[in-house]
Amino acid sequence: MKTVYIDIYGADIGPEPIIRGALTALERYADLHICFIGDRDIITAAVNDPQLLESRVSIMHTTDYVTNDEPASCVFNGRDNSTIVMGLTALKQDENAIGFLSAGSTGALFVGSIFRLGLVCGLKTPALCSVIPCCDGKLLALLDCGANMDCRSQDLVNFALMGSALMKSLGESPAPRVALLSVGREDSKGNKLTQEAFSKISALPVNFIGNIEGLDVVSGEAEVIVADGFSGNILLKTIEAVGKSGIAAVNDALKTCDTAAKADLEKVKARLSVSYDFNPYGGASFLGTVKPIIKMHGSATEITPSSCIDQLIKMENANYRQGQIDALSLAQ
Amino acid sequence: MKTVYIDIYGADIGPEPIIRGALTALERYADLHICFIGDRDIITAAVNDPQLLESRVSIMHTTDYVTNDEPASCVFNGRDNSTIVMGLTALKQDENAIGFLSAGSTGALFVGSIFRLGLVCGLKTPALCSVIPCCDGKLLALLDCGANMDCRSQDLVNFALMGSALMKSLGESPAPRVALLSVGREDSKGNKLTQEAFSKISALPVNFIGNIEGLDVVSGEAEVIVADGFSGNILLKTIEAVGKSGIAAVNDALKTCDTAAKADLEKVKARLSVSYDFNPYGGASFLGTVKPIIKMHGSATEITPSSCIDQLIKMENANYRQGQIDALSLAQ
Repeated sequence: MKTVYIDIYGADIGPEPIIRGALTALERYADLHICFIGDRDIITAAVNDPQLLESRVSIMHTTDYVTNDEPASCVFNGRDNSTIVMGLTALKQDENAIGFLSAGSTGALFVGSIFRLGLVCGLKTPALCSVIPCCDGKLLALLDCGANMDCRSQDLVNFALMGSALMKSLGESPAPRVALLSVGREDSKGNKLTQEAFSKISALPVNFIGNIEGLDVVSGEAEVIVADGFSGNILLKTIEAVGKSGIAAVNDALKTCDTAAKADLEKVKARLSVSYDFNPYGGASFLGTVKPIIKMHGSATEITPSSCIDQLIKMENANYRQGQIDALSLAQ
Repeated sequence: MKTVYIDIYGADIGPEPIIRGALTALERYADLHICFIGDRDIITAAVNDPQLLESRVSIMHTTDYVTNDEPASCVFNGRDNSTIVMGLTALKQDENAIGFLSAGSTGALFVGSIFRLGLVCGLKTPALCSVIPCCDGKLLALLDCGANMDCRSQDLVNFALMGSALMKSLGESPAPRVALLSVGREDSKGNKLTQEAFSKISALPVNFIGNIEGLDVVSGEAEVIVADGFSGNILLKTIEAVGKSGIAAVNDALKTCDTAAKADLEKVKARLSVSYDFNPYGGASFLGTVKPIIKMHGSATEITPSSCIDQLIKMENANYRQGQIDALSLAQ
């Protein structure tokens, strides 16, 4: 049995769609068990199936959750009854647990992943990794995408190793192409941090293809893009914002267009949505933790928990946890 | 008389379209004089108008120019006959000179702007500033966009002051809204550099609206976005790449679409082009120099020099040079 723990709070759409969306994954995975963490009454009503609650769905009752306005450090020592701390503790203690999903405070998950769950291989910090679609429908792992603002070059080395291991385990490539986010392709381009990281990553046994610049990140040249969390976050959010503005332009045209134009406009919309609608991917993984955590976006939709569970199952089936440890040991 | 110096080399399309494009500006500005720097024969043939060459167009003959493969430092001490050094020297010495356009090596222009032209107010480095279109057709100044990789917070303060002065002189706003590129809106978000810069910029007499994140940069909330050159370059190139991919999707659809759909697709293309086709803006300005330099993109088209001249004339008419000095003196 594989158990996924799910914090029902934190999404803009409220707990019910998160619960309903997660349940759809039970149909795909016969050995999946889901444990929802949150208010018992809300969960029972949303599941609305006594037989599931007998067999494949369990509940950890609490009504406390960490809000985005609270300091992340509140989970460091205390808040034992918050959904995030309960989830991280269960993830650590339950041998069947394969992952934890939460749309709650990223900061609390970050701090909690270090102090409540634990990191592997003596890491000082986990990486936050977004897996997003790329121009040709393939997937792209971007890390760090916003957890580590000021990085050392050794952090970027660890990101390269963990990102490569992740994309292997997700079946994207046997030798994922790893690129370093910079301002030009030439080896010497970049700031002090990336210049130092460039030579270190070059020495790793990963498929390092060198620097990549903003113009090329959506070109499909790399499966893994390594960045400090500040520039990685700017990259991720800018792709999303500009991509969305393209989809919005087509949507506006669809409202007033000639009937004969609908089909062609829908085709353009579909093509842009494949690349820039991040909702089906709606989460970012913490890597380097002893077991995977996926932070769902606040804007998660009903399909988000289901696709996040897909990712956790893939990671578990490919033994990502061991793959990550093997990869990181190469950096020591 | 206002003289603009133009390096004819460096653009992918070659010198002739750059020359022809620049000439169109003569029709708009009766007191404009253009001095082309490059091979006399090429310039004479492209201008192809003896009367213009008698009156409003002059030539500084040379066949030497700095390539992108050469170290930028070659202009520090030497290469006196290269187009870039000749242009910067003329810009400094000719009292009528109001600006210099070049599609040549950004690095050579950067080094040359410091050692051959000079900076104002004791600045240690110029800023590279791109003025790009924004979602609502307004303009947005982004600086630094790639010249200064590792910035101090004082650099970001100077960028805020110079960017605000530029957008005033371009007539975009009497009190341009200045935002600091970061990973979230809250004051405390960001890395050490932006956190330090945030409090310093808050104390300036500019219209500082706080942090802006990747999701909002194309929203039209700010007229000036301040960033270190590393993350600014990533922002700029990512907007361009994702925007272009949207235009490309529409172009592909236009090739195969129903005839009745053409008009609606063209409308979408026009809307996306207004925001994401940077060719009409095709240059980035060095700010903080004693006189303005505009670096045209390598991908400059025939309309690029003409629109860059528009910008130089606007800056001159609004007395940008003095405005910049006045602004920077507020930071001392």
